[in-house]
Amino acid sequence: MNTFIEYQKQIEQALKNKKYGSNPKELYEPIEYIMSLGGKRLRPVLVFAGCGFFDGDVSKALYPALAVELFHNFSLVHDDIMDKAPLRRNKSTVHKKWNDNVAILSGDAMLIKSYQELCKYEGAVLPQLLEIFSDTAVKVCEGQQQDMNYEHIQTVTIGQYLKMIELKTAVLLGGSLKIGALIGGADEKSAQNLYNFGKHIGLAFQLQDDILDVYADAEKFGKQKGGDIAANKKTYLLLKAVEMAEGNRYMKEELHQWINAPHFDEKEKVEAVTAIYNFLNIAELARAEMKKHYSTALTFLNEIPADEIKKQQLINFADSLMVREV
Amino acid sequence: MNTFIEYQKQIEQALKNKKYGSNPKELYEPIEYIMSLGGKRLRPVLVFAGCGFFDGDVSKALYPALAVELFHNFSLVHDDIMDKAPLRRNKSTVHKKWNDNVAILSGDAMLIKSYQELCKYEGAVLPQLLEIFSDTAVKVCEGQQQDMNYEHIQTVTIGQYLKMIELKTAVLLGGSLKIGALIGGADEKSAQNLYNFGKHIGLAFQLQDDILDVYADAEKFGKQKGGDIAANKKTYLLLKAVEMAEGNRYMKEELHQWINAPHFDEKEKVEAVTAIYNFLNIAELARAEMKKHYSTALTFLNEIPADEIKKQQLINFADSLMVREV
Repeated sequence: MNTFIEYQKQIEQALKNKKYGSNPKELYEPIEYIMSLGGKRLRPVLVFAGCGFFDGDVSKALYPALAVELFHNFSLVHDDIMDKAPLRRNKSTVHKKWNDNVAILSGDAMLIKSYQELCKYEGAVLPQLLEIFSDTAVKVCEGQQQDMNYEHIQTVTIGQYLKMIELKTAVLLGGSLKIGALIGGADEKSAQNLYNFGKHIGLAFQLQDDILDVYADAEKFGKQKGGDIAANKKTYLLLKAVEMAEGNRYMKEELHQWINAPHFDEKEKVEAVTAIYNFLNIAELARAEMKKHYSTALTFLNEIPADEIKKQQLINFADSLMVREV
Repeated sequence: MNTFIEYQKQIEQALKNKKYGSNPKELYEPIEYIMSLGGKRLRPVLVFAGCGFFDGDVSKALYPALAVELFHNFSLVHDDIMDKAPLRRNKSTVHKKWNDNVAILSGDAMLIKSYQELCKYEGAVLPQLLEIFSDTAVKVCEGQQQDMNYEHIQTVTIGQYLKMIELKTAVLLGGSLKIGALIGGADEKSAQNLYNFGKHIGLAFQLQDDILDVYADAEKFGKQKGGDIAANKKTYLLLKAVEMAEGNRYMKEELHQWINAPHFDEKEKVEAVTAIYNFLNIAELARAEMKKHYSTALTFLNEIPADEIKKQQLINFADSLMVREV
């Protein structure tokens, strides 16, 4: 069986058996709920992957892997309050199913429990694991705050956007791999290279997501086409289009009219903005940025003195996560 | 100079020099703000006190002490959102000065930073410190959730109330002392005895607070007299009065009329409920419960094979924190 699918199954099984507490139930039921909603369990799989890459015993990476998954879900619970999101994985978000206070407090408990889980690791590298974990966690908070800030300002640069997605999304993928690597016995330099591989793969993922929102086959991808456009979400595509339209008065005006329109037909807006993207060749530019990060990721991976077969397996896994229909 | 005042000065100085980060400012300015509002710094002083009690080098306890203070302030920031509190130490709360989202996220960052601070401790007992810290932190969340639950239910027992204040308030005092004790070289049993001393002193503090709200000389105590009564806050006094009025139909009806009155003259309500308390001798019963915990605290302290002078100093410090005007 594919190693990564095997990792995922082990993690899912461990999560299924996990108990978080029972009293008061308003604190613990939301934790059970959000942790049982599933998902790809990408981050804990990456902890295992980092460990396995260096031929480590992945069973030793289980608690840190669960810690990372708990942390990720804590961040989802709190982000969903801040974003007033009603749904998460097609189910009610915690703050909708219960209320904001329950979501704040059960999120807090999850963050504390993520540290408890990590501290069950008994090896000598625990202090390093804690350092990476906290450092990554702070960055995720910084990224979320930047994301909220950027909703309210008109001029976000591509550089600011890339930094934001690096903090909010990419560093946790890198951090997960690095935690696994150190458990697997990697030296600091190799572990850092694997971190950078994960970070740049994470950036490539996010850019791919931005592209897919507009250009994916909606049926295959299972998401509404152009949802980001309708919501004026500041993606790489929109920011690049705004930047490029700067030199073309007609295009600039049309783009800003759509962005600032208080009322609009959604289909019409998506089609019009997509037409501007097409005219400006935005998809190609976004793909070029994505490929740049993908290549950078590979450069870091190649720096590591490790088995080429292992490297290829990790690349194949990363590739399998990038939806291929574009 | 008094050792404990010296501890407080050292902690205040360290907090003054501390930098939390700068970008994005919406994440870090609230942290600077809440950490600079002052207060007695009781919890970090207790970390020092626990260390000093066992003749440890308190300079080694600085990071864990700051960790505990950061954790405490994180819990204040999030509790204030949940309680919709406008003021904290006579200044705007974080969620009022900024907004709920900023308060959620900067609180999260403080919780993570409290772990970062704790992990700067480099001694062999770090895993134990982390265990106590997380265990205490989870209990504080449980206590806060219970407190919120009890706002919405009529029948809270004295036992439930005492358990709630133990979790929400008392365990962090015990945990602070225990963290200090372990840094100071205490064995596990002595450290646990000091924990229990702190926990029961914490319960006594809270009961004292409940009593003072009704019976303190308002000018000396600097708080509105009977604020808890006006707000129907479920204190030991109210719960005991409800319990005791059970056998007296007239008293029960009067008490419940005041509790359920949608509109009332605040002064009239405070006077009427205080009269019921006086009739039922509630203050004496509350003082008896308080003294019970104070005595239990001393029993745990006396279990520790340590210098009697040190014990007396710690008792004097605890006494100095109990306002004496009742």
